[in-house]
Amino acid sequence: MKAFAKVRPELGITRIEADQPRPGNNEVLVKVRVTSVCGTDYHIYRWDDWAKAHIRPPRIIGHEFAGEIVEAGPGVTTHKVGDLVAAESHIGCGRCYQCRTGNSHICERLAIIGVDVDGSFAEYVKIPEQNAWPIPTEVPVETASILEPLGNAVHAAFAADIAGTDVTIFGCGPVGLSAVALTTVSGALSVTAIDVNDYRLGIAKKMGASKTINSKELDPVTEIHRDTDGRGAGVVLEMSGNEGAIRAAFRAVRNGGTVILFGLPSGEVRLNIADDLIFKEANVRGIVGREMFKTWYKLEALLKSRKLDLQPLITHRMSLDQVEDAMKLVGSGECGKIILAA
Amino acid sequence: MKAFAKVRPELGITRIEADQPRPGNNEVLVKVRVTSVCGTDYHIYRWDDWAKAHIRPPRIIGHEFAGEIVEAGPGVTTHKVGDLVAAESHIGCGRCYQCRTGNSHICERLAIIGVDVDGSFAEYVKIPEQNAWPIPTEVPVETASILEPLGNAVHAAFAADIAGTDVTIFGCGPVGLSAVALTTVSGALSVTAIDVNDYRLGIAKKMGASKTINSKELDPVTEIHRDTDGRGAGVVLEMSGNEGAIRAAFRAVRNGGTVILFGLPSGEVRLNIADDLIFKEANVRGIVGREMFKTWYKLEALLKSRKLDLQPLITHRMSLDQVEDAMKLVGSGECGKIILAA
Amino acid sequence: MKAFAKVRPELGITRIEADQPRPGNNEVLVKVRVTSVCGTDYHIYRWDDWAKAHIRPPRIIGHEFAGEIVEAGPGVTTHKVGDLVAAESHIGCGRCYQCRTGNSHICERLAIIGVDVDGSFAEYVKIPEQNAWPIPTEVPVETASILEPLGNAVHAAFAADIAGTDVTIFGCGPVGLSAVALTTVSGALSVTAIDVNDYRLGIAKKMGASKTINSKELDPVTEIHRDTDGRGAGVVLEMSGNEGAIRAAFRAVRNGGTVILFGLPSGEVRLNIADDLIFKEANVRGIVGREMFKTWYKLEALLKSRKLDLQPLITHRMSLDQVEDAMKLVGSGECGKIILAA
Amino acid sequence: MKAFAKVRPELGITRIEADQPRPGNNEVLVKVRVTSVCGTDYHIYRWDDWAKAHIRPPRIIGHEFAGEIVEAGPGVTTHKVGDLVAAESHIGCGRCYQCRTGNSHICERLAIIGVDVDGSFAEYVKIPEQNAWPIPTEVPVETASILEPLGNAVHAAFAADIAGTDVTIFGCGPVGLSAVALTTVSGALSVTAIDVNDYRLGIAKKMGASKTINSKELDPVTEIHRDTDGRGAGVVLEMSGNEGAIRAAFRAVRNGGTVILFGLPSGEVRLNIADDLIFKEANVRGIVGREMFKTWYKLEALLKSRKLDLQPLITHRMSLDQVEDAMKLVGSGECGKIILAA
Repeated sequence: MKAFAKVRPELGITRIEADQPRPGNNEVLVKVRVTSVCGTDYHIYRWDDWAKAHIRPPRIIGHEFAGEIVEAGPGVTTHKVGDLVAAESHIGCGRCYQCRTGNSHICERLAIIGVDVDGSFAEYVKIPEQNAWPIPTEVPVETASILEPLGNAVHAAFAADIAGTDVTIFGCGPVGLSAVALTTVSGALSVTAIDVNDYRLGIAKKMGASKTINSKELDPVTEIHRDTDGRGAGVVLEMSGNEGAIRAAFRAVRNGGTVILFGLPSGEVRLNIADDLIFKEANVRGIVGREMFKTWYKLEALLKSRKLDLQPLITHRMSLDQVEDAMKLVGSGECGKIILAA
Repeated sequence: MKAFAKVRPELGITRIEADQPRPGNNEVLVKVRVTSVCGTDYHIYRWDDWAKAHIRPPRIIGHEFAGEIVEAGPGVTTHKVGDLVAAESHIGCGRCYQCRTGNSHICERLAIIGVDVDGSFAEYVKIPEQNAWPIPTEVPVETASILEPLGNAVHAAFAADIAGTDVTIFGCGPVGLSAVALTTVSGALSVTAIDVNDYRLGIAKKMGASKTINSKELDPVTEIHRDTDGRGAGVVLEMSGNEGAIRAAFRAVRNGGTVILFGLPSGEVRLNIADDLIFKEANVRGIVGREMFKTWYKLEALLKSRKLDLQPLITHRMSLDQVEDAMKLVGSGECGKIILAA
Repeated sequence: MKAFAKVRPELGITRIEADQPRPGNNEVLVKVRVTSVCGTDYHIYRWDDWAKAHIRPPRIIGHEFAGEIVEAGPGVTTHKVGDLVAAESHIGCGRCYQCRTGNSHICERLAIIGVDVDGSFAEYVKIPEQNAWPIPTEVPVETASILEPLGNAVHAAFAADIAGTDVTIFGCGPVGLSAVALTTVSGALSVTAIDVNDYRLGIAKKMGASKTINSKELDPVTEIHRDTDGRGAGVVLEMSGNEGAIRAAFRAVRNGGTVILFGLPSGEVRLNIADDLIFKEANVRGIVGREMFKTWYKLEALLKSRKLDLQPLITHRMSLDQVEDAMKLVGSGECGKIILAA
Repeated sequence: MKAFAKVRPELGITRIEADQPRPGNNEVLVKVRVTSVCGTDYHIYRWDDWAKAHIRPPRIIGHEFAGEIVEAGPGVTTHKVGDLVAAESHIGCGRCYQCRTGNSHICERLAIIGVDVDGSFAEYVKIPEQNAWPIPTEVPVETASILEPLGNAVHAAFAADIAGTDVTIFGCGPVGLSAVALTTVSGALSVTAIDVNDYRLGIAKKMGASKTINSKELDPVTEIHRDTDGRGAGVVLEMSGNEGAIRAAFRAVRNGGTVILFGLPSGEVRLNIADDLIFKEANVRGIVGREMFKTWYKLEALLKSRKLDLQPLITHRMSLDQVEDAMKLVGSGECGKIILAA
């Protein structure tokens, strides 16, 4: 089959011919219809420090996808051939403390599709049956690969108590933008979106942000305090991974408020723990992946409510063969989510 | 001054002449501009069992009000003559365990305006300065007496985790109707409002209910299970106090869901604790009053966000002299909130 | 094989010869070494209303047990023949909302061993592999059947915030007694145990209760208020299922406190919801079974800490052939946990 | 009156003659019987960067104390002359969002005794009446100044869910040592105490630590993972403020676990946020002061339960005149809490 892989420890992505995967016990084989590009894929493409530490080439990459089940391995009971499914990209071991207490997404032996096992920039991909989620009728299969990153935003946004609260979101990549839409429909009093890119701030506005700040032009911490009677935001979602933004997040939150950390910084970050965390009695929570499968139920319910308009999020539709162009577009920042038809 | 009081232990309300109150230490005197009618006032008017147990006549009743501070007692520092204020109707002792741990609304020696001390169906009423809340600019003083019952709804609605959840509300009196509006703007996936009165269900619809059920015509438990894939509502707010509704609330909630009990039943209620509470692992929380003053901040923030439209809630505007007509109207159920100009 | 079953819809239990079960996919066959008697077994023995509603004879009963795995069905990976295991008695469907969000113990299609499928009053019993839990080295296999009811107590006790709190426990059956020991070692300031049986109150004392009350002699509500400066208990665990005790539990809890309901009443219970739940802003939580498998990890950790002394709990050791005598002993109340050697 | 103050912006403390304070509205005057030395006092004595940023000389320092009320200002109602009281050292404004929502300890205009207003290294000190707490009969007045730092430990320890959890405590100063005792009696499965000073580790052992680690000799992170099946500690209390310890705290906690940050680092701290916080989904909470007055109730209840043995904590008793010797002793680390008789 056709696939795109990291074949050598260097910048780039390569078209290869690979064997079609064979589903094992409790696994299904999915014919990919649509796959999309995540920031993680771009890290791997660029071959930065994070990628060097986590990827062992050759590896077919890609982990946001949807498609049709074309083969079911032994023991599969919850899906059948012909089902249209999206995929949870985290694979828990099923046996560790975390997996057995409802926290597979922080499994002690976690494997991630497109990172630790072969991924979805290919004609076919195999996954455990429990990782396949029926595509809700509210979402066309052609865009259903966005359920996975939208799930990140659901998990991050619902980790704090946002109803009736002033919310600040640092970072307007696809997950940050999804969080803008989610917090807006989930009762935030105000949603202030911050980025350095006016294109993305424009999308944030379309997705419901009550205010946008380009942090190259205005100091977001000053703005947020002015907008909240000097008190600070009740909840700050840090979705950028940028060191300056992470530091600003802690200065923007009010005493007793909550900072959700989702964006992955590429190195260590220096924090003023005394003033910005201890004296404030800030609550901080790291968020990764999606709760398996609480987040998916929440996500499906939100889609069924038809309160979310995700159209502004999808800015480009290309074919899988154009994956390298898509990577460069991600690097430019001049995009929301890029969907690749397989 | 002119006032309306329960003067004898029997049905009715009587116009009296009373001495103008004198504010003591840390108290303010408020000239009432607007006061409104609560279900509690109607209990007292009817002189039912609850009223007999809690009221010692003579007592000027009424506790929902707003007006102007016309005198400040010794030690008052946070308000001044001329300020327009609404009132928190619960007076904590300030010294008990509850008061000193942020829970004055469940003070061990709680006093309620219009129940334990003289109230607002009068030209003037005195209150502790901390019970006076500046009227937000978003609310005209002519309707600011609704902040107190709206606060009940805020406290009840935010006691459960409603964002991304199917919510059911039993009882469409003014507090239940406010809860419909609040949960709608606070991220509920769906809000189903239930009552026996089509007039009130009509208001619920205007305030945002995604579905209304007249429980004289359809069984709400059956409907709710049908609407939630047989699972039940994630959160049920019981705002009616009706025994049948309380029982239905526990059958309508899903396993692991939350029931908020706010409506006061007039007698004991029989529950199927084994099936409807234990096997379901239901979470139940009794709610009374407003958190002092967390609820008021939340309320003010919601008003500032301009997401709430309370206009459908106020169905009648009358003068204080018509209080007896207002009482009868409450008894008929053919009203939302009735505002009385003083 | 030899087994004891409810064979007819009437009082009693019958020795039968049954086919040895055959483990299916992902199931293991356990040779029972020890099984113990639960209140549920006694309900079935007596054939009361609960039993009539839940049991379809013939059914081999019993669900507290430990033994040796003697056969592993296809697909079993986490256990092997020869392993000594105790058993979780709840079997989740693995596919419903509850199972997929970490709450299998309130599965929408829950099956219980010895109730819905054949149980452990037998030489052999088959269970899903995930329901088998390796017996911690701190517990002799001869008493390891008590892990299941001890898990009930762990789940109930940790559902409230007991550290630094005055705790009241109604009901000193084996689970209530276990809760006495657990709350005592888990930071409760005081643990008051209540029952009508002095024999059981004597065991409660041995298990660490700071005070015991025979509710036939003294009013527990009065005592608890006297012992807590008139405030009431911070946490009340209702483990008896007795209607009077359930009503007293709500009167014994302080404003803002928590009532955990575990004991199953045989019929509906009348509550003063206004005074005892709403005006108090009580938190109530129904508890059933054990969290799968958070409770088991907690339980294992507690056993490893060697802080729990369970010896006073086990008052009788008999053989499985004496199961009818054991049933009668349970009926008398003059026992703690009865262990049956298979 | 005699007092000890920071009179110039440099190392040292000076004996001065000062005017006796006059209690204002709702204030009481306390004749100091006992005062003790906090790490904060030592920061001020040394005149380090923190002190330079927070102290405006001249200032009488000291904030841990107990004594007798000798004068009550106008409006005082809850205490009277002759009462023996300990003191909460944080003074809230009573008017900000935090004060009015039960969080005075993180008041937006917080004043601290001995830092922002004159303190207790003196014959007399005046405080708001609400900051005076009657000394429980279980504590001799001669040592009652330790209630304030013990309150820090109560607030920190109860901010996480410690019952049934493996707890690690970095830093064995007086508050860390108090946390060792508190978590031990509050249901922690194990309490591992870490410091660089064997003298303090010896006290930790006496106060109940199940294990102590001198981090100059052994790597605590390695030890903790070994002791928890490779999983990490469920709760880590960071009480040292040392940068290396703060970094180790995040590596020592398990996935999904909680880190409580209490110790104040003198500068910024570099953290590996991606690996140690986000991928772990760690919960982090900054803790400062004591909840006013939830912590004091908890503290009083713990003392009444007589489960806490604080004797090992008090290692030195000196007179106030020896305050400079006491400071040097704190600098050496060869002490627990030093009590100064006034």
